[in-house]
Amino acid sequence: MSEVYAARRARLRERCNAGGSATALVTRPANVRYLAGTAPRDAVLLLGVDEDVLLCRGTPGGRPGDGRPDEALRTHRLPGSAGDPAVAAADLAVARDAESLAVEEHHLTVARHRAIGSVAPRLRLADLGCAVEQLRVVKDEEEISCLRIGAEITDQALAELLESILVGRTERHLALELERRLVDHGADCPAFTTSVATGPHAGRRGHRPTDRRVEEGDFLSVCLGAAYRGYRCEIGRTFVIGTSPADWQIELYDLVFASQRAGRQALAPGVTYRAVDRAARQVLDSAGYADGLAPLMGHGVGLENIEDPQLAPAAMGKLDACVPVTVEPGVHLPGRGGVRIDDTLVVRPEADGGPELLTITTKELLAL
Amino acid sequence: MSEVYAARRARLRERCNAGGSATALVTRPANVRYLAGTAPRDAVLLLGVDEDVLLCRGTPGGRPGDGRPDEALRTHRLPGSAGDPAVAAADLAVARDAESLAVEEHHLTVARHRAIGSVAPRLRLADLGCAVEQLRVVKDEEEISCLRIGAEITDQALAELLESILVGRTERHLALELERRLVDHGADCPAFTTSVATGPHAGRRGHRPTDRRVEEGDFLSVCLGAAYRGYRCEIGRTFVIGTSPADWQIELYDLVFASQRAGRQALAPGVTYRAVDRAARQVLDSAGYADGLAPLMGHGVGLENIEDPQLAPAAMGKLDACVPVTVEPGVHLPGRGGVRIDDTLVVRPEADGGPELLTITTKELLAL
Repeated sequence: MSEVYAARRARLRERCNAGGSATALVTRPANVRYLAGTAPRDAVLLLGVDEDVLLCRGTPGGRPGDGRPDEALRTHRLPGSAGDPAVAAADLAVARDAESLAVEEHHLTVARHRAIGSVAPRLRLADLGCAVEQLRVVKDEEEISCLRIGAEITDQALAELLESILVGRTERHLALELERRLVDHGADCPAFTTSVATGPHAGRRGHRPTDRRVEEGDFLSVCLGAAYRGYRCEIGRTFVIGTSPADWQIELYDLVFASQRAGRQALAPGVTYRAVDRAARQVLDSAGYADGLAPLMGHGVGLENIEDPQLAPAAMGKLDACVPVTVEPGVHLPGRGGVRIDDTLVVRPEADGGPELLTITTKELLAL
Repeated sequence: MSEVYAARRARLRERCNAGGSATALVTRPANVRYLAGTAPRDAVLLLGVDEDVLLCRGTPGGRPGDGRPDEALRTHRLPGSAGDPAVAAADLAVARDAESLAVEEHHLTVARHRAIGSVAPRLRLADLGCAVEQLRVVKDEEEISCLRIGAEITDQALAELLESILVGRTERHLALELERRLVDHGADCPAFTTSVATGPHAGRRGHRPTDRRVEEGDFLSVCLGAAYRGYRCEIGRTFVIGTSPADWQIELYDLVFASQRAGRQALAPGVTYRAVDRAARQVLDSAGYADGLAPLMGHGVGLENIEDPQLAPAAMGKLDACVPVTVEPGVHLPGRGGVRIDDTLVVRPEADGGPELLTITTKELLAL
């Protein structure tokens, strides 16, 4: 694996050099992990002229999901009580005669930036921008395989929940049970806070579980995902509780399903982000639900559960092959509930069979 | 409750005015919640000359633990796709003829700071520093009562675990079960990632649970806490698995217990932070464990699970009454395991009976 991380760092160094900075300081945890294989708490990565160094605090910790460090990378451990590793990194850059240092201005706080400036007043601080985030958009097959395993774990956890009695249980209990099942099946941890939404809550994006209990006739929507070796997939499904759904429930479900299918079918290399958003959004728009829709119809996933690209009306850019994204339209009717359907897929060229669906739980409307 | 938040904001305004800024922008979520009663995702609080405004994105969400907004506070909701609420707040400050704006430089990123500077080039940006964090150190009785309830929930969850079979179960399962029990008993959520450490892992501060199974003869150390109405307590205990502890286990336990008791007994208004650290630390030092000790022997708790003060050798300041802190010394012997004992207490004057212990689970060495 070492070569993978070294190659990623080499690509970043090329970008830095093109931008006029020979050294860069990476502070955002997911970016550190992408380039170093692991990201202990407060760790930062200094990309130097000759050698790269991971600076972190205290004793090594870690659990299965924390990733293994790139053994070829020099690690410098600061005593537990020492100051900011980012400041120590700037010090090290100066000791190596660096003239400029590119930092992640979208992550570094003003106070840390100032502290770096004062230990290294002659070091010119530049902006690395989202260079690492951009490298992270297209995944290699190793990364996709982690997402695929995470999706299998997620599908299993969801399948088991559906076999259990749901009526009378609270959203919070169901969410905790899903999270326990994710870990049982081998997830590092849940990829994000599991959402379980019943009755009038159903269909709300990012709903935080409450003490409301599942009732007959409810819509029940869930959104969950496993983190596996750091990679975070996402699935969302909506069900009906009881013997048979009401007509309005079937209609709404079919509409959101059609929207989600349109979004999925739009996924292909070269298609603009906004075209995917539009494909899913216009199905809901033309049925009269333009107001109250989410600002995006999907997003990238990887080491973070929401990352680039955004599939949104104003997003700039085009899909590439090997970009994993969610497609997740939904409609929520205040007071009544609603439907969300959410899959994680990998963009693939048509010659390879088109988009690869990772989350394979059925999207039929199940009455539970 | 509204008056509580208004009074907190008035105190902060006084400090700002004394510092030369009539307006302030609070971005750190726990600080927003402290001053506004709630902190929806990305919400920021603008303390204006005449009126304070909470700026946030999109539709209201929230669950029991998210807190209720101060109804007397004006809330301004930006459309879901709108930009950074902090930038919108700066815009609003300019519209109200503010000349300077104090920001939380230790929280705000360089990029956001720059964005504020470019929408409001004439606005002088000052540093609010940790003014809100300082206000948060001394708690009112309402806050302490939330911590007390959280501690009761935590004690219950731990008591139930101790009644179950432990041998053969993994650290990760035990941690998940503790978290489920916390929520069962009414916690908003776990206050932090529950730590369960067995055998050679036991006694490690912040150990992340692994797949190691509990074995006969192990030390087992746990650290957990409930968040209740946003307030986060903490308890840590160490047990022995099996019929009777070995001599070295009893000796090490007694030592850490003596250290923790010394730390607890040192808690009183007017005592320096470092004196509390020293009281606990010197017991371990003089037994030959100076190396490898944690950088601090305790810390404040409240809306964040680690907040000011730090009970550490170089910490500046003195305890006040009504400051809740942890006392949590530990010793870890590489390859063998170790002991941590951790309580949450509230500093009280001797006339009121001295420090109030919130986490009352026994600190006898139990063999489970």
